[in-house]
Amino acid sequence: MRRAKISIIGAGNVGATCAHWCAVEQLGDIVLLDIPGDMADMPRGKALDLMESSPIFGFDSNIVGTNDYADTADSDVVVITAGIARKPGMSRDDLLATNAKIMGLVCEQVKKTSPNAVVIVVSNPLDAMVQRALQVTGFPPERVIGQAGVLDTARYRTFIAMELGVSVEDVSALLMGGHGDTMVPLASCTSVGGIPVSQLIKPERLEEIIDRARKGGAEIVGLLKTGSAYYAPAGATAQMVEAVIRDKKRLIPCAAYCDKEYGVGGFYVGVPVIVGTGGIEKIVELDLNETEQAAFKKSVDAVKELVGAMAKLV
Amino acid sequence: MRRAKISIIGAGNVGATCAHWCAVEQLGDIVLLDIPGDMADMPRGKALDLMESSPIFGFDSNIVGTNDYADTADSDVVVITAGIARKPGMSRDDLLATNAKIMGLVCEQVKKTSPNAVVIVVSNPLDAMVQRALQVTGFPPERVIGQAGVLDTARYRTFIAMELGVSVEDVSALLMGGHGDTMVPLASCTSVGGIPVSQLIKPERLEEIIDRARKGGAEIVGLLKTGSAYYAPAGATAQMVEAVIRDKKRLIPCAAYCDKEYGVGGFYVGVPVIVGTGGIEKIVELDLNETEQAAFKKSVDAVKELVGAMAKLV
Amino acid sequence: MRRAKISIIGAGNVGATCAHWCAVEQLGDIVLLDIPGDMADMPRGKALDLMESSPIFGFDSNIVGTNDYADTADSDVVVITAGIARKPGMSRDDLLATNAKIMGLVCEQVKKTSPNAVVIVVSNPLDAMVQRALQVTGFPPERVIGQAGVLDTARYRTFIAMELGVSVEDVSALLMGGHGDTMVPLASCTSVGGIPVSQLIKPERLEEIIDRARKGGAEIVGLLKTGSAYYAPAGATAQMVEAVIRDKKRLIPCAAYCDKEYGVGGFYVGVPVIVGTGGIEKIVELDLNETEQAAFKKSVDAVKELVGAMAKLV
Amino acid sequence: MRRAKISIIGAGNVGATCAHWCAVEQLGDIVLLDIPGDMADMPRGKALDLMESSPIFGFDSNIVGTNDYADTADSDVVVITAGIARKPGMSRDDLLATNAKIMGLVCEQVKKTSPNAVVIVVSNPLDAMVQRALQVTGFPPERVIGQAGVLDTARYRTFIAMELGVSVEDVSALLMGGHGDTMVPLASCTSVGGIPVSQLIKPERLEEIIDRARKGGAEIVGLLKTGSAYYAPAGATAQMVEAVIRDKKRLIPCAAYCDKEYGVGGFYVGVPVIVGTGGIEKIVELDLNETEQAAFKKSVDAVKELVGAMAKLV
Repeated sequence: MRRAKISIIGAGNVGATCAHWCAVEQLGDIVLLDIPGDMADMPRGKALDLMESSPIFGFDSNIVGTNDYADTADSDVVVITAGIARKPGMSRDDLLATNAKIMGLVCEQVKKTSPNAVVIVVSNPLDAMVQRALQVTGFPPERVIGQAGVLDTARYRTFIAMELGVSVEDVSALLMGGHGDTMVPLASCTSVGGIPVSQLIKPERLEEIIDRARKGGAEIVGLLKTGSAYYAPAGATAQMVEAVIRDKKRLIPCAAYCDKEYGVGGFYVGVPVIVGTGGIEKIVELDLNETEQAAFKKSVDAVKELVGAMAKLV
Repeated sequence: MRRAKISIIGAGNVGATCAHWCAVEQLGDIVLLDIPGDMADMPRGKALDLMESSPIFGFDSNIVGTNDYADTADSDVVVITAGIARKPGMSRDDLLATNAKIMGLVCEQVKKTSPNAVVIVVSNPLDAMVQRALQVTGFPPERVIGQAGVLDTARYRTFIAMELGVSVEDVSALLMGGHGDTMVPLASCTSVGGIPVSQLIKPERLEEIIDRARKGGAEIVGLLKTGSAYYAPAGATAQMVEAVIRDKKRLIPCAAYCDKEYGVGGFYVGVPVIVGTGGIEKIVELDLNETEQAAFKKSVDAVKELVGAMAKLV
Repeated sequence: MRRAKISIIGAGNVGATCAHWCAVEQLGDIVLLDIPGDMADMPRGKALDLMESSPIFGFDSNIVGTNDYADTADSDVVVITAGIARKPGMSRDDLLATNAKIMGLVCEQVKKTSPNAVVIVVSNPLDAMVQRALQVTGFPPERVIGQAGVLDTARYRTFIAMELGVSVEDVSALLMGGHGDTMVPLASCTSVGGIPVSQLIKPERLEEIIDRARKGGAEIVGLLKTGSAYYAPAGATAQMVEAVIRDKKRLIPCAAYCDKEYGVGGFYVGVPVIVGTGGIEKIVELDLNETEQAAFKKSVDAVKELVGAMAKLV
Repeated sequence: MRRAKISIIGAGNVGATCAHWCAVEQLGDIVLLDIPGDMADMPRGKALDLMESSPIFGFDSNIVGTNDYADTADSDVVVITAGIARKPGMSRDDLLATNAKIMGLVCEQVKKTSPNAVVIVVSNPLDAMVQRALQVTGFPPERVIGQAGVLDTARYRTFIAMELGVSVEDVSALLMGGHGDTMVPLASCTSVGGIPVSQLIKPERLEEIIDRARKGGAEIVGLLKTGSAYYAPAGATAQMVEAVIRDKKRLIPCAAYCDKEYGVGGFYVGVPVIVGTGGIEKIVELDLNETEQAAFKKSVDAVKELVGAMAKLV
């Protein structure tokens, strides 16, 4: 036995809070990496603050902050949260170009230092960034996964629990497709205490709830004014790390590389998968009805366009 | 704020292990009661053993063993596990008569000492015992609940997770009707990661799995030779206690008193309910198809017969 | 039973992360309050982000963000993190005056809306702010507590565990006196697996470790460049909230109002106390040796001076 | 990463409940082994009952019951609880002979099937059984550990918390020497919130408390009439398993093979040790005062006598 090693690239709020959950769950030792420069000591500061909470939470994970990929060597899981947020006046393509470049630099290092890791990408725009990670690492697709569906589904489940006044523990759901506007609602894959949601919430009301989930990230940005959500994103990411480290075989929605699956043809899109130590151990193919197929196709088309745009920029 | 108080009547394996989970979850202080006589000190011994595990698990619940209902006064929740197990050569009616008598003696005391408690009945035969508890306490029906569905569903979920090789965390299900032979399978209320089970397991195989769940208790008795299951029953019961104490509004299957609901006419039967501080805060009425209705009716008829038999014996 | 209610005044990093721990530990419902104005929606944004993590962590606490003290009414515990951080060029007195004014405004509202709450003060300069909270609320001193010792001790325990290469779970310690420079080291109250630290670490090395703990906050500010520690402070505060809500009778160091105790004469200073539902249920008086007494006196003198300075400013 | 594998030999109450804690803590997959014969299916029954609790507790450990050591192959940790309890009329030597024989049979199998495991012995009489396990496995001494001190200390901590009305979380203690009558009290290694117990409890009262801890097992046997304690013993054992699997470097009292350490000369005796993935990674040598040395010597002498008696019987 050796303790698992988890490296988190990008020590912002999502990265550092994800580190905290991994530590509290005692998933392994953690390396928090961010870039050198003026703020070079920042990951060390966050790592130390996290360590100083260990007597309170009773964990013995070692958490270190660094600017050096050598410290991440031989990680079992690498989480990538690196990337900039869209600033006022910045075009979508500028953001795409900048983050694709960052992702490239990160992944070249990850490829060298942790060649056997499962990589979990959190950076945005997610569907393009995870494709970029696949390209640059050259890892087998099952070891490069995008986080989006667990978060989107958590938001959706929260809103359903609020609507019905029931425990979040009893709401199950699945959302497919892209992260955000092209999310594919599957009313048939939503249940409460096992009961199909169609017996509990009217279709038009459910559509409103789905729409709120779809815009969940923007709703929080609008309220916070500065900054974006990080408690739920960090929790969602930590849950994926746990699924890998503990080989839990979670059946959850993730951005997975689909080739023949769903007829996607080599792109990342949100689909139900089984996540274990090997990363994505299976892509679960569902029967979609016509409406769902159309929405899924629209989602895939949006991803293709995004990846196409990225190809011209890198 | 005062700590919640949970009394558990019957300090056997189910009762004492339920006490442990309530303590570890820090749900409140716990009184473990069993009858006086040769083994009068037994609940004190179990309570002490449980207390001595507190530094390991970090809980500060007070756990006391007693033979005196005065010590249970003003409990928020009373769990009743008291009753004898069926012995070789004992008729069903003998068992029913004995346990109905025990339940009557217990409930007379509970009525006096904890008039505002939510009562959770675990004793068998469950559907009759919980009716007896309602009769003797005279409590409003929402405060007298039977534990059966949470356990049956836990078994069913376990078998589905085994079948598919996925995390138990991602299996949702609902079973209705009586505990055991007359359990009503609702394939439409079973999902994995939100996906209807019909997309993942063939009907005939699912029927086998349901049948195994139906006979889950007997399977364990058969393996153990002496004694019966208690880890899962204790966990299921503790989960119901948590739902009440923490007002979680869990949507779970319990034996609930149904009058107009489902046209039952004043008997206890397993149905989906919302459990919170008030006990059963809502009975959820589902649309059942014809097959399901027939199975449910059969289940209700069996309960009526059982309660009728009990009426002649007490 | 009703769920406990916890209000957190100040929705910055410490406040919001404290809210998360209270929710994950299922301590009760949470209100996150911050001031109106440009950023008025910020607490709503954080509360929503926190709520959206609930399906991942399995909690059913209700978390709301607000600018209105009416929403905090009848809280069981009020945590006050409000206050500004010292900015470059700002004198200590300017900071003291500003935060004393903020504390006064907050406490006038708390007094009206939650007259029976236990108040936990986290704002800096801690020893003055908690005295101000006592003055303005007029609550009995046992219901107005300052958080400092739990955090300082967590840091100190972390460093000792690092030094010896042992689990943080096995390091016990107690630090008295003021938060920061005038912290009083009690080598006799530090043990590892029960073993007095003097048998494991040499005095001069222990002094270095204590000195690092004393400057723990500043070390992190220096590394982060912008902002200050919040993971450990939030955890330490949540642990105090838990001690009150669960009536755990924790024996921990807190800033407590000492009159005759230790001969302090009516000021707040870090001492070992027992914390339960009533707040500070007992101040534990230790025998201090001469060196310790001298250090403690110095600490008390610094508090008196600080409170004196505050008196001139408000 | 692969999941850790934990085998538990002896599927009685201590073994099965230890399995439950290991599963709930998600320490790894678990094999529960007991002997073939009339009750051959018993471990399968307990394993199934435990598995059926998994949806309630959210663990995905695989738990299997077996009679075949092949199923335990390549375990990371092997816990041995096998052995009979002393029956009325049975001499101490009869018990010793029987359990030494059982331990021999178990260890021959463990040696073959899990040559790299850390072995944790729980069977009684503990100090002899763990020596026997060392002899038969031929494993290096750091990989053969006896559980006694964690349980004894848990009892002692519980009684001190009761005495003072404080949280068990704040009581630290260390007990050395043999399990039971020859336990060595170290008042200097007992503290509450870091405070030496001598400042809180008078010596004569502390002696009474120690004496109760010393006889803790017998107190419970006396109350239960049939059977002995298992909740606290199972918890104590699971905590040791966690220390190994998670490499926590716990500084806890265990029965460790001491040669030069404390001048013991090649016997097992309860001493403070650091437990991690390698088993006992360090024996911590304390300065004992004369009284403590005398008590420790008495304890060692009792162990030597016991081991000597065993040598004549096997």
